[in-house]
Amino acid sequence: MCVFCKIVAGEIPAYKVYEDEKVLAFLDIKPVHPGHILVIPKQHVATLEEVSPTTLQALILIVKKLGGVLKEQTNYEGYNVCLNNDPVANQEIPHLHFHIIPRVSGDGLKGWPQQEYAAGEAEEILNKLKR
Amino acid sequence: MCVFCKIVAGEIPAYKVYEDEKVLAFLDIKPVHPGHILVIPKQHVATLEEVSPTTLQALILIVKKLGGVLKEQTNYEGYNVCLNNDPVANQEIPHLHFHIIPRVSGDGLKGWPQQEYAAGEAEEILNKLKR
Repeated sequence: MCVFCKIVAGEIPAYKVYEDEKVLAFLDIKPVHPGHILVIPKQHVATLEEVSPTTLQALILIVKKLGGVLKEQTNYEGYNVCLNNDPVANQEIPHLHFHIIPRVSGDGLKGWPQQEYAAGEAEEILNKLKR
Repeated sequence: MCVFCKIVAGEIPAYKVYEDEKVLAFLDIKPVHPGHILVIPKQHVATLEEVSPTTLQALILIVKKLGGVLKEQTNYEGYNVCLNNDPVANQEIPHLHFHIIPRVSGDGLKGWPQQEYAAGEAEEILNKLKR
């Protein structure tokens, strides 16, 4: 049983923020900033490809709700929502989880470097995606 | 009119990956890796708090679909889904957009530093969130 399934089952304690039939939200024990929340489906699935559409829709509404709560109930003025899908994308626990990362002005956290396409490169990947 | 609304209106060209009544997806012109996709609601809203639940649910299903397409149609084995909500969270265009960032093994892109809570700190923020 994965560590998040153990939290769902009550075998490992967690600081629970929200719970319903399908969804559990709790504090990341190693936050980027205090109040960093993880939102997971109770049923074990590893990735976005595996989760059912209805469970995914339930999850994202709770992400929206809790993001609003963060802004209303704390001094945070914004947040990032991040899903690391697959090990190559830094997914550490193989149980789907959205991060809600509250942000502090001037915390210096940056996105990843971005660069422009070389000639023809955008068309090439677009053709693959539109197959 | 914001730059994404101009893309929706056809006033600025874009490499469109997917389009329906509510949702538009197109290539980020400055990708982290080629195939980096932005998924937006056609109707202008700035943040997750402003978007309607039904539009948000439509958006996340398209994110799921296109993430799957990336893995099926290209050599990418995973991706990150990121939403920067509000300027403090690095939101540059004030029109809600999910990033789908395909990842390459060994690309060295890391998450932000995380640290453990000080004594009592988790309980304090939890109490605010559960008000």
